[in-house]
Amino acid sequence: MKLPLCCSALLVLLLTPSFSHGGNILVIPAEGSHWINMDILLQALHSRGHTLTVVRSIKSWYIKENSSYYNTLSIPVEKNIDEELITNVMKETVQFARGTLPLTSFVHMTIGMVGIFKDFHAVLCEFVSTMLDDPAVIKTLHESRFDMVLADPCWGGGPILAKYLNVPLVYNGRWVIAEEAHFSIAPSPVSYIPVTGTGFTDRMTFLQRVKNILLYLITYIQNDVIARQIYQPICDKYLDPDHDFNQIKTDADIWLMKTDFVFDYPRPTMPNVVYIGGFQCKPAKPLPEHLEEFVQSSGEHGVVIMPMGTFVSELPDDMANEIAAAFAKLPQKVIWRYKGKRPSTLGNNTLVVDWMPQNDLLGHPKIKLFLAHGGTNGVQEAIYHGVPVVGLPLYFDQYDNLLRLQERGGAKILSIATVDKDDNFLKAIQEVLTDPSYRENMQRLSRLHRDQPVKPMDKALFWIEFVMRHKGAAHLKAQSYNMSWFTYHSVDVVLFLTAAVLLVLLTSFMFIRCLFRALCKRKVKRE
Amino acid sequence: MKLPLCCSALLVLLLTPSFSHGGNILVIPAEGSHWINMDILLQALHSRGHTLTVVRSIKSWYIKENSSYYNTLSIPVEKNIDEELITNVMKETVQFARGTLPLTSFVHMTIGMVGIFKDFHAVLCEFVSTMLDDPAVIKTLHESRFDMVLADPCWGGGPILAKYLNVPLVYNGRWVIAEEAHFSIAPSPVSYIPVTGTGFTDRMTFLQRVKNILLYLITYIQNDVIARQIYQPICDKYLDPDHDFNQIKTDADIWLMKTDFVFDYPRPTMPNVVYIGGFQCKPAKPLPEHLEEFVQSSGEHGVVIMPMGTFVSELPDDMANEIAAAFAKLPQKVIWRYKGKRPSTLGNNTLVVDWMPQNDLLGHPKIKLFLAHGGTNGVQEAIYHGVPVVGLPLYFDQYDNLLRLQERGGAKILSIATVDKDDNFLKAIQEVLTDPSYRENMQRLSRLHRDQPVKPMDKALFWIEFVMRHKGAAHLKAQSYNMSWFTYHSVDVVLFLTAAVLLVLLTSFMFIRCLFRALCKRKVKRE
Repeated sequence: MKLPLCCSALLVLLLTPSFSHGGNILVIPAEGSHWINMDILLQALHSRGHTLTVVRSIKSWYIKENSSYYNTLSIPVEKNIDEELITNVMKETVQFARGTLPLTSFVHMTIGMVGIFKDFHAVLCEFVSTMLDDPAVIKTLHESRFDMVLADPCWGGGPILAKYLNVPLVYNGRWVIAEEAHFSIAPSPVSYIPVTGTGFTDRMTFLQRVKNILLYLITYIQNDVIARQIYQPICDKYLDPDHDFNQIKTDADIWLMKTDFVFDYPRPTMPNVVYIGGFQCKPAKPLPEHLEEFVQSSGEHGVVIMPMGTFVSELPDDMANEIAAAFAKLPQKVIWRYKGKRPSTLGNNTLVVDWMPQNDLLGHPKIKLFLAHGGTNGVQEAIYHGVPVVGLPLYFDQYDNLLRLQERGGAKILSIATVDKDDNFLKAIQEVLTDPSYRENMQRLSRLHRDQPVKPMDKALFWIEFVMRHKGAAHLKAQSYNMSWFTYHSVDVVLFLTAAVLLVLLTSFMFIRCLFRALCKRKVKRE
Repeated sequence: MKLPLCCSALLVLLLTPSFSHGGNILVIPAEGSHWINMDILLQALHSRGHTLTVVRSIKSWYIKENSSYYNTLSIPVEKNIDEELITNVMKETVQFARGTLPLTSFVHMTIGMVGIFKDFHAVLCEFVSTMLDDPAVIKTLHESRFDMVLADPCWGGGPILAKYLNVPLVYNGRWVIAEEAHFSIAPSPVSYIPVTGTGFTDRMTFLQRVKNILLYLITYIQNDVIARQIYQPICDKYLDPDHDFNQIKTDADIWLMKTDFVFDYPRPTMPNVVYIGGFQCKPAKPLPEHLEEFVQSSGEHGVVIMPMGTFVSELPDDMANEIAAAFAKLPQKVIWRYKGKRPSTLGNNTLVVDWMPQNDLLGHPKIKLFLAHGGTNGVQEAIYHGVPVVGLPLYFDQYDNLLRLQERGGAKILSIATVDKDDNFLKAIQEVLTDPSYRENMQRLSRLHRDQPVKPMDKALFWIEFVMRHKGAAHLKAQSYNMSWFTYHSVDVVLFLTAAVLLVLLTSFMFIRCLFRALCKRKVKRE
């Protein structure tokens, strides 16, 4: 009973001819690894005949001015997020992370990162102001008659512009400011839903649940401060009065959520959330000749790959030496993306590269192990191709992402703090390479992930086009968006019912006391 | 930008050849209109090569012993649900309903029906006992090596048998004992989710929210009483110890929910809930010759149809006369399913029938109006074909179902209490026939309902087969199933944190008091 995976790609082909005209989409992306994902979606939208206009800063790091598949609206901002600063902070984080994990992750998600977060959102707000103060931009925006806004929910530009233009909004992402997006829209019992950064699973001890609820409160306050101090003034200035930013940020028609329940723990969701986790994954293409030759030379032992994330590609020298020495002891070949000083301990079996075709390597039958830092993209690709993982998490959600694989028996997490002690690194690699259960579990996850009635990318395209066909998806938006917290949680009703019960009890008590006294008096009189 | 509707039917055709063998499914259905739906699903499963064994009572009303597409396991029960009794209760309900609505609906859903409900579940429990006490049945069950149980969640037989046989469980339904199934599995804020029977929408006033929370509590208690008194003893007797019925009833792998958010109000849901509302709907087939002739004779005015529900096809004489008289005044032709005494006021334009091909009529372009009692099947068919409705709700969820159409501007609800007063009936029909907004709104709902990436029936088949391929869908089941209510709601953590805060406050207070006293003493000494 096996499902052919071709059917959902075929579905999209079937859909294509019926579109009489393409839609006109305004794209409000985010920088960094988020853009990499958005870009893949934009290429797919372009190939379906839609017109795309991407809003970018003239100082953008990743988003190119000229593209064959989208137009740009470049905003001449003065400030920009300082890429160098962020890279340095990331490097420091790695050093610091060598102390402890996941406490570090916890601290960074909540306190250490607050400063960067506030700066980050302040810069983004200046971006929105610059746009909406510029008559030429306003004219372009209005004249373009966009059908919808497609935005990354990790900052407030998308919802503000969608409200400003009064067009439907589709989100593509997994984070809303500092929290996992589900916490903003779906009921999230913190008794079994771990807050990102805690390093907990969906089965928590009592003390873990205490920590989880406390971190939830901290994240909630952090989000609220950023909403009120940074974004609310922009709403007050450019939108009709009484637009609460916290309300408009959750008022999207469709949430394309870059996760699924093969990867994440099952939890309550909402009708307008569409799971597109792994939408960027695709079958491997043939490798470049020199890589294929290197991979084939590994013989029956196969290959270990170690790419690194968007920001960190250099490690401290001593750590790089330890890693290279461990690699040298393996019978496998190793492909290592590393830009730092060439480690002195590097073995003949290790190929150091500037860049590697990660997806094509993961889909190659010779690849036996993936050394991952735990970014969402890499973890999703590991699931898609069913390759076991040794994880070296550094910051943000990386530990939590890898934990989801480890819990399912497909990965082993190493702490940066102890990676260079007692041959931990080598032992972990050898364990995952020799124990077949790691690969079997990743293959099982891969089968589950691939067994969907519609492929994630096709779901994304369908719902974006649905929103354009029907001018929104109001019928999928629950009334909870429009409610104050005390109405939503029935606080007023519970108080009313408690008061009513107390009143009945009190009245009964008074009545009985009066009756009792009257009886006593009568008795006294008689006596 | 219009979607071709053929694609999802094509999808299933694409899936078919890849199944190397069919699955072996044990079906635990429910009687009445629920069976009509289940039967449609069984035919589709049979056509995809699966073997079906339907468990039925030898006294079953609807489920036939001999079928070309399923085997039966007939259980020789002594008691049976008395169809005549139920029919009589239904008739009384109609009489009673002529008093008020939706209060009647409320009363019946909560108090009036409790007796019937308890009897109903007690009879069903005897059914399970008879099965599990019969060595021949047990032998058959074990030897059949079923891949899964497909059950209606409105009674406890399905989950108990699935647990007994230790096989995956898929539900097909919308009710769990006395409540809408979502309330059993998904967080359900009663501040905007109306309890069935209240006749409220998802936008409630303060007093409506008070009533809603009270009805929620009553329903909750009613369900809990039936679970503990009727089903728990069966679990204790036939299953391993410590199986709590309330837990096992929510422990299904997949919930095929017979609703969607074109019909119902959007609300929180869970990853293993699959919406298949309207899965039984299909394009109209040509009408029988005599009906087509009658329909065509209506000319430009078109036709009004009035089928009735599974139980009620007779109305009180006076009411039937009023209805017939109103029909006689219409320029339209009328097709009326009615088994009672021929009303004296019947006009020439009205054709009384014993049965009508409801779906084929609703899909006929000449049909202008659907007089519906508000059963889920009829309402879904009205949405599918986009036909406006005048609703005459009687009991259960009928008022609430029709309210969802009325709220979207596609229907007008008449109270049975006032239907025969002041030409209300005639006026309602004329209003819905002449005001084009009713048809426009139903057509809009129809477009939304049909615009899905996968057709509801195909979704149902996909997820049933998914459960057989992967021996369950554990990765979609949230941990909430395994948690006690006080852990789930973090009651222990909140109490702990409150105690901690109080302790800190108290200690600080004591410390400050001691310090203050010590200072005072020293001062006194000095003086």
